[in-house]
Amino acid sequence: MKLVTYRASVEDAATLGAVVDGFVVDVARLGQAVGVDLPGTMLGFIDRGLMTQKALQRLLDAGLEALPPQVVLPLPNVTLLAPIPRPRKNIFGIGLNYVEHVAESARTLDTAKDLPSEPVIFSKPTTTVIGPGEPIRHNAEVTQQMDWEVELAAIIGTTARRVSEEAALNHVFGYSVMIDVSARDCRRAGQWIVSKGQDSFAPFGPCIVTADEVGDPHDLTLWLTVNGVEKQRSNTRHMLFKIPELIADISKGMTLEPGDIIATGTPEGVGAGRDPQEWLWPGDVVECGVDGIGQLRHSVIAV
Amino acid sequence: MKLVTYRASVEDAATLGAVVDGFVVDVARLGQAVGVDLPGTMLGFIDRGLMTQKALQRLLDAGLEALPPQVVLPLPNVTLLAPIPRPRKNIFGIGLNYVEHVAESARTLDTAKDLPSEPVIFSKPTTTVIGPGEPIRHNAEVTQQMDWEVELAAIIGTTARRVSEEAALNHVFGYSVMIDVSARDCRRAGQWIVSKGQDSFAPFGPCIVTADEVGDPHDLTLWLTVNGVEKQRSNTRHMLFKIPELIADISKGMTLEPGDIIATGTPEGVGAGRDPQEWLWPGDVVECGVDGIGQLRHSVIAV
Repeated sequence: MKLVTYRASVEDAATLGAVVDGFVVDVARLGQAVGVDLPGTMLGFIDRGLMTQKALQRLLDAGLEALPPQVVLPLPNVTLLAPIPRPRKNIFGIGLNYVEHVAESARTLDTAKDLPSEPVIFSKPTTTVIGPGEPIRHNAEVTQQMDWEVELAAIIGTTARRVSEEAALNHVFGYSVMIDVSARDCRRAGQWIVSKGQDSFAPFGPCIVTADEVGDPHDLTLWLTVNGVEKQRSNTRHMLFKIPELIADISKGMTLEPGDIIATGTPEGVGAGRDPQEWLWPGDVVECGVDGIGQLRHSVIAV
Repeated sequence: MKLVTYRASVEDAATLGAVVDGFVVDVARLGQAVGVDLPGTMLGFIDRGLMTQKALQRLLDAGLEALPPQVVLPLPNVTLLAPIPRPRKNIFGIGLNYVEHVAESARTLDTAKDLPSEPVIFSKPTTTVIGPGEPIRHNAEVTQQMDWEVELAAIIGTTARRVSEEAALNHVFGYSVMIDVSARDCRRAGQWIVSKGQDSFAPFGPCIVTADEVGDPHDLTLWLTVNGVEKQRSNTRHMLFKIPELIADISKGMTLEPGDIIATGTPEGVGAGRDPQEWLWPGDVVECGVDGIGQLRHSVIAV
C-alpha cells in the first residue's frame, strides 16, 4: 500500500490518502462511506496497527471502480505534504553507513577512515521536515557548504524497546525517501545537529510504502541528481548496518515509537567528497528517488 | 508564578497547576469556577501566551483564601510529573558551556582544550524526559560510565526564528532544572545522542518558574550531590554563552517553538572529570537544584 498525506485544496487540512493507479483515496472518508472507522492522519493510521491496515487493504483490493466516487481524487489535483508533516520526535539519522561514503568522508571531512564499529547516530529536529516540492532554504549567513544526501527512510510502526535483530523488522511500518541536507561548515565540536538540523533540511516523501509491499528493503536502488546531473547512485544492499541492526541498536537505549523515522544513511557521491568539492546554491534543483518507493524534487532558495 | 504538571491521583490525567504557599491550584478548574477560559496543560498554557499568564496571575494575586476551595490541593497530596511530560521535539542541549567544565572535559574526555567559539549544540529525544522522583535507568549492557550534569533549563514561550540577542529573552517563558545524564562510553564518532539520549536521561522539574519571577537567569546558584556528597556547585553567571546568545544562535537555522527546552550546560564537577573518575550505579541517589527554581531527587535503578 502506498500512503500519502495531502491537501485537496489550500483551505483543507492535511489528509491521509492511499494512492491507487494515479488516484488518491481519502482514507477516512472511504471509511465513513462504507461504515468502517478509519483514521484521517498518517500517525493515526500507524498507531492503529496491522488490523486497520488490513481493513483498508481489503477495501482497496476491490479496485478503484468499486469505491464511492466522492472519496477518489486524481493525484495531480492534490498537493502532497510530507507523509508525516510533523513527526512526534526528532528524526534519527545514521552517519557513515555506506562503505564508499565512509571513505569519501574521511578524505574530505573530519571523520575516521575506519569503518565504524557501531552505528553513528545523530538527530534532526522535527522542524527540518518539508514536503515534496517545498524549497530547501539556503541561508548564506549560516552556510557556504550545503550538501545533498539521498537516503532510504524507515518508519517505525510499533513501539520498539530493546528488540532483537530478528524481531526488528516486525516494528517497521514502511519506507520512504529523505534527503539528509547537511551544511558541512556547521559542525561544532564534532556535533552534527546544526549541520543537519536546520529548517527544511529533511525533504521527506512523496509517500510511505508499507513494508509488506516493499519486500526486501536491502535491495533498493537509490539515486540523486543536481540540475539533472547524476551525483549519487547506489543500492541499499551496500548499507554497513542493515535496518534490523539499526533498530536493535537504537532501541537498546532509546525507545522507538510509532511514526518515528530512521534515515538510514547515504551512499557515496556527496558534494563534500568531490574534487573540487561541490555545494548547493539558490537556484539549484535536487531530484532523487528510491526505486519502488518514489521520487522527490526540490529547489534551493535563498532566505 | 511557579507552574507544575501533576496528577491528583493515579487515575487522573496530567494537570496544569500553580503552586502557592505549599498548595497546588488546578488552573483549568479555577478558570471554570470563575468563568475564565484557562488551559489544563502546560503546553496549552505556554501556547496561549502572556495575556493568559496575566489573567491567571491576577486570579492568584487575590490569595489562596479567595480561591474556590475545590480547586486547591495540598502539594504533598499530588504526584508531580515533568512540567512538560512530553515535549513537542527534542531537547536542545549545550555542551561545554561553563569554563571550568571545558577544562575538566578536555582532561578526561575527547573534547578540545580551547573554549568553543560557538555554542556546542546537541539533542536529547523526548523519550529522555522523566518527572521528579522517577528513577534514572541504568542498563549495564549499554553503559559502565553513567555521569551527572545539573543544568538550568530555559523554556521557550514564543516562536523564535532568527531572533537577535537583544530580543531573545522575550521568547523565554520560564526556567526549570534538568539533569543531563550522560553515558560517557556511548559517544560514537563524536556524536553524543546515544550518550545523552537514552530513556530517563533527562530528569526535569519540579516546576517551571515564569521568567518575570526569576529575574536575572544569569545569577542563579546550581548544585548537585550524589548520595549526599556535593559534586557540583556553581552559578549560572559562569556560562560561556549566555541564554540570549544561545537562543540567537540556535534560531539562526533552527526555529524554536513554544515549549521547546534548552538545557544550558553544566558546570564543573562531573564524574568524568574526577581523579579517579566516578560513575553512577544502581542504588545511587542524585539530588540537585537551581536556587530560586527548585530541586530534584532521583534514584538510579538497574534495568
